[in-house]
Amino acid sequence: MNGETMRGVQKATAAPGAVLATVPIPIPARDEVLIRVRATTICGTDLHIYKWDPWAQSRLKPPMVFGHELAGDIVQVGVDVTTAKVGDFVSAETHIVCGYCYQCRTGASHICRNVEIIGVDRPGCFAEYIAVPAVNIWHNDPTMPPALAAAQEPFGNAVHTALATNLATRNVLVTGCGPIGLFAIGIARAAGANQIFATDINPKRLEMARTMGATHPLDSRDDVVRAILNATGGEGVDVLLEMSGHPSAIDQGFRSLRYGGFVSILGLPANVVPEFDLANHIVFKGATVYGVSGRKMFETWYQTRALVGGNKVDLRPIITHHLPLEEFETAFELMLKGEAAKVALYPHGVEGAW
Amino acid sequence: MNGETMRGVQKATAAPGAVLATVPIPIPARDEVLIRVRATTICGTDLHIYKWDPWAQSRLKPPMVFGHELAGDIVQVGVDVTTAKVGDFVSAETHIVCGYCYQCRTGASHICRNVEIIGVDRPGCFAEYIAVPAVNIWHNDPTMPPALAAAQEPFGNAVHTALATNLATRNVLVTGCGPIGLFAIGIARAAGANQIFATDINPKRLEMARTMGATHPLDSRDDVVRAILNATGGEGVDVLLEMSGHPSAIDQGFRSLRYGGFVSILGLPANVVPEFDLANHIVFKGATVYGVSGRKMFETWYQTRALVGGNKVDLRPIITHHLPLEEFETAFELMLKGEAAKVALYPHGVEGAW
Amino acid sequence: MNGETMRGVQKATAAPGAVLATVPIPIPARDEVLIRVRATTICGTDLHIYKWDPWAQSRLKPPMVFGHELAGDIVQVGVDVTTAKVGDFVSAETHIVCGYCYQCRTGASHICRNVEIIGVDRPGCFAEYIAVPAVNIWHNDPTMPPALAAAQEPFGNAVHTALATNLATRNVLVTGCGPIGLFAIGIARAAGANQIFATDINPKRLEMARTMGATHPLDSRDDVVRAILNATGGEGVDVLLEMSGHPSAIDQGFRSLRYGGFVSILGLPANVVPEFDLANHIVFKGATVYGVSGRKMFETWYQTRALVGGNKVDLRPIITHHLPLEEFETAFELMLKGEAAKVALYPHGVEGAW
Amino acid sequence: MNGETMRGVQKATAAPGAVLATVPIPIPARDEVLIRVRATTICGTDLHIYKWDPWAQSRLKPPMVFGHELAGDIVQVGVDVTTAKVGDFVSAETHIVCGYCYQCRTGASHICRNVEIIGVDRPGCFAEYIAVPAVNIWHNDPTMPPALAAAQEPFGNAVHTALATNLATRNVLVTGCGPIGLFAIGIARAAGANQIFATDINPKRLEMARTMGATHPLDSRDDVVRAILNATGGEGVDVLLEMSGHPSAIDQGFRSLRYGGFVSILGLPANVVPEFDLANHIVFKGATVYGVSGRKMFETWYQTRALVGGNKVDLRPIITHHLPLEEFETAFELMLKGEAAKVALYPHGVEGAW
Repeated sequence: MNGETMRGVQKATAAPGAVLATVPIPIPARDEVLIRVRATTICGTDLHIYKWDPWAQSRLKPPMVFGHELAGDIVQVGVDVTTAKVGDFVSAETHIVCGYCYQCRTGASHICRNVEIIGVDRPGCFAEYIAVPAVNIWHNDPTMPPALAAAQEPFGNAVHTALATNLATRNVLVTGCGPIGLFAIGIARAAGANQIFATDINPKRLEMARTMGATHPLDSRDDVVRAILNATGGEGVDVLLEMSGHPSAIDQGFRSLRYGGFVSILGLPANVVPEFDLANHIVFKGATVYGVSGRKMFETWYQTRALVGGNKVDLRPIITHHLPLEEFETAFELMLKGEAAKVALYPHGVEGAW
Repeated sequence: MNGETMRGVQKATAAPGAVLATVPIPIPARDEVLIRVRATTICGTDLHIYKWDPWAQSRLKPPMVFGHELAGDIVQVGVDVTTAKVGDFVSAETHIVCGYCYQCRTGASHICRNVEIIGVDRPGCFAEYIAVPAVNIWHNDPTMPPALAAAQEPFGNAVHTALATNLATRNVLVTGCGPIGLFAIGIARAAGANQIFATDINPKRLEMARTMGATHPLDSRDDVVRAILNATGGEGVDVLLEMSGHPSAIDQGFRSLRYGGFVSILGLPANVVPEFDLANHIVFKGATVYGVSGRKMFETWYQTRALVGGNKVDLRPIITHHLPLEEFETAFELMLKGEAAKVALYPHGVEGAW
Repeated sequence: MNGETMRGVQKATAAPGAVLATVPIPIPARDEVLIRVRATTICGTDLHIYKWDPWAQSRLKPPMVFGHELAGDIVQVGVDVTTAKVGDFVSAETHIVCGYCYQCRTGASHICRNVEIIGVDRPGCFAEYIAVPAVNIWHNDPTMPPALAAAQEPFGNAVHTALATNLATRNVLVTGCGPIGLFAIGIARAAGANQIFATDINPKRLEMARTMGATHPLDSRDDVVRAILNATGGEGVDVLLEMSGHPSAIDQGFRSLRYGGFVSILGLPANVVPEFDLANHIVFKGATVYGVSGRKMFETWYQTRALVGGNKVDLRPIITHHLPLEEFETAFELMLKGEAAKVALYPHGVEGAW
Repeated sequence: MNGETMRGVQKATAAPGAVLATVPIPIPARDEVLIRVRATTICGTDLHIYKWDPWAQSRLKPPMVFGHELAGDIVQVGVDVTTAKVGDFVSAETHIVCGYCYQCRTGASHICRNVEIIGVDRPGCFAEYIAVPAVNIWHNDPTMPPALAAAQEPFGNAVHTALATNLATRNVLVTGCGPIGLFAIGIARAAGANQIFATDINPKRLEMARTMGATHPLDSRDDVVRAILNATGGEGVDVLLEMSGHPSAIDQGFRSLRYGGFVSILGLPANVVPEFDLANHIVFKGATVYGVSGRKMFETWYQTRALVGGNKVDLRPIITHHLPLEEFETAFELMLKGEAAKVALYPHGVEGAW
């Protein structure tokens, strides 16, 4: 295949939008594998790149095929690869880490200081093929639908966030019901949470929150704090999973937290948070707050396998649309308009949809 | 003694200042003991009460004898008391907790929802005698100087903050070198910290920081972040102990923290923090942040005994002045002018000073 | 009621068996409440007392009403009691702790050095009434069947054991399917465990294990280690919950544990364990082992409320028989013969049975 | 250098003893470096190999150069190596791990299922040169004496054991004062332990224990348990660091542990432990026990750098003898007779001794 070309969704120039380009099929390095992409799902990060927002402008160097959530079959392996073989059905961890920084050498490679991200810093998976380091490969059950296999990557973010503490018997609040918030609700239910509160302003998403297991889907424009205190005997939730990045939701979340509670934050505020009530939110409450970046490599993936592979969380309601790769513009528009939760693209034709 | 009177420093009216009043000697309840106060040390909280700032106005109900850091001898015990006897030389935990809220029933009574604080919500120890519940008593070595014994209470705040994580071999930053920050530096040294950075703007306090064990006392108006990154191979400190409550010091502290670092916050910002960079300070860094309120009851006191009683931390340089109780106004002025670190008052005459 | 008498199952003399005696209704102390017992369940400890085995002989001082798992209504409160009132439907934590030993003062009162146990060191609940300290009271939902409410106490042992680590996504082995092992299986399922292995030699208990959620009930006389390694890709279980106290089951459990696994031990070997393979079981494996005594006070009870009250674990299949108190001999025989899992006795008539 | 020969201490045949052989200088693979060994220290494992005990017979395949504690200069690097260069002064982690087993992928590579150990499973460092994978290299301060740099490896075992919990303010017992036990005492002192108890039967070792910081060196044939209870107010030690592997010392250690204490076990019993009192040692005590294998990669090395490089623990008293490599037989005899604690060998001439 080396020397041949393929189709890929490319950020061609430093401007909004993307094109379906013809580019060379990557040649795997000694320690890489080449994957024939069967399904890829679209991340919020991809929308930032598509819209070409300030973050994307500062980070991405066009022309670049983007996309990073993927599943496919290995079709070629580099000469040094011993842990994967042609024919394996795999997904990929998208953080390519250095292996020698302090973080990598102490079991925290998810916050590697020299990380490269697939589809951001190097060619991505919105294409027929992608080359990735063998150490980033995750082997899937061959019977798993490819779109589910691809969605394990963002689901992993939710796993890392939700299982940062023991949720069994806990009252939990998820602020923000985008795809990862919805995943987190499903994980909280599977992990034995007691009451699960979820906030958003989109009624469709609150309905999906209920489907995933939220016992109390709440419109964040209502008096969420009072509702939560009422339902918890005045105590507040044991655990806050912050998925929105919105200052008002963050404030609401911390005010709903009980004294001595635990907070995992995955949501990224677009700017600094104005008026953060550090004294009341963290100090007086004796709270513990944990910042979540990526997935623990590879603890999170093992947990994901048990949850998704073991059917403890059904991801299918969250992946609402299935399209061939060439309809990527439709896919992006569906997500930008909020009509889709998560969309799967298929470079070699739709398969395994539900 | 019941029915007799004593002298006590009283917030007499809802206005700045305090007076030396004659008040009844308290009568201990069934589960309380009466302590003859031998030494009491002045806390920042007492300065707030003295100045009658907005917090004090909202919380204190004059007339009230205040003060809460104390050591003395038990002179009377309530009928139900079995764990202390007349003649015991004791200090006191100043949080009087309810024992039946969720926090109290799960080993977190330091964040009791119904706490009463000595010298704030009920009569304090700037007086010849004080009554406190027997469960709040802490027995001291009879040979300990009374001012040291009294200072164990604020020292405990530093212990709770500093030993919230394992400091051995860690690079540590203490932001704010007031008495509790200085205590924390001494604890970090005793607990085997590697490099100890300390920031303040007061040169005298930075000099005391060095005495207590700071390897790098730094003026916070200099480029502290660069200095710390240089000294840590570009990594940043493993642990931040925030003792200042100042937004700029908080920001500096988080920017000096390594990826995956740990933060204990005891400092209380006077207002909400404007412009808190949650994404960079906590989320991307994968940081863990713990809010510190009071002392763990009584884990912190056992740790304090080992540190102070075992001479692993010498508190004496921090208690810079020793005065009879009636000179309380001099004492407050010394602290307000920044000429004293911590002042000890003696209701029955100065003893054991150094 | 004070001065009146009641019926109680009493160990009358230092010999096997028990009698239904007429004894005075207890008079609650200032800090105690008097409970009209509606249901009580029989513990393994009660069988030891009934049989009068060496442990019972060394600990119990006849004559003594025994029994400690209970639920009932408060009918009288001591003068100092503020946290409970006549009419409350309650259960009781059966460890009466001193409150001033190191363990009690550091959040570990479940291992209080001066503990008194209800029904062992002081009169128990196999009677119409019992007096217990108000701090030991646990308030129940008034609609909970009394036998379920009583069984929360032993269920709490299983909660403490099982939730000592995060079970979500974990492969778990429960060795020993007595009532507490069966409870633990239900908790593991509710807490999101992945595969749940359970061992015993009694086919009836293995069948109950399956009912409670075991995915792999295994006869411990078969090659359990091989079966577990096969089902876990050669890795072994992440977590072992040891409930049997049998040296061979303990050995089997440790050999089935993965490298880096976690072990909670509640089962009490009758004697020292001969031939414990410390090097292979713990050191080379890098295992963590936690010994479980009683219930965390009261963290475990809050967790129990969420699990039982929230219907996440259905205890009813484990309580197999319901009898009036006077049929206690039948009850003990059913348990000694292994025909019953757990039996409920009703001092004032059977109610709420299923 | 490739193609040339060097001198190395070799287990030449399956029999006791060793010879100084002439063997080829290793050729580093693509991802390896070649190190000119400046100092190597002798481990207890090397004595097992020298004596050819049953463990050695079952594991080692002669002929093999053994030895694994080393420091030296890199003289050649494989073509794929980017993280080290010729001239670097380095030590080496001696566990060569697979990188893809569950343990390696979840931050626990110290218990890798496919580990190869330098000097046991592949040629070691009792030689002029050794080839090791670049990922196993640890960079040293160029001014560190080579024998200290070599001894960081066994010191790391003590670090892993001692810093498995927070020792600050804790009373600690170290059972067994061989070199690693002595290291652990020094670490406990540096980490702020309160009282440090140490047991052994060898008076010389107990004297060294005192030098390293033991406050109570105790002959294990005396009533150690009583002495410890007396010195700790009847409570027992907070932490036991088991370094002996002797059943009686293990029993003594557990009996000296307080309720709720923590145990790290590095000592390897030669056989199964007869009569292990699991109920009293672990269950009733509510103890936590952690098995220690190797060093955490590379958390332990960073901690070691801070302790040894920062002069918080002085290892020099433990390395009692310095000899040229060719006097290896003298070295082994000194250790077998108990006349040396740890011996350093120098393949290219003694340097930096004290």
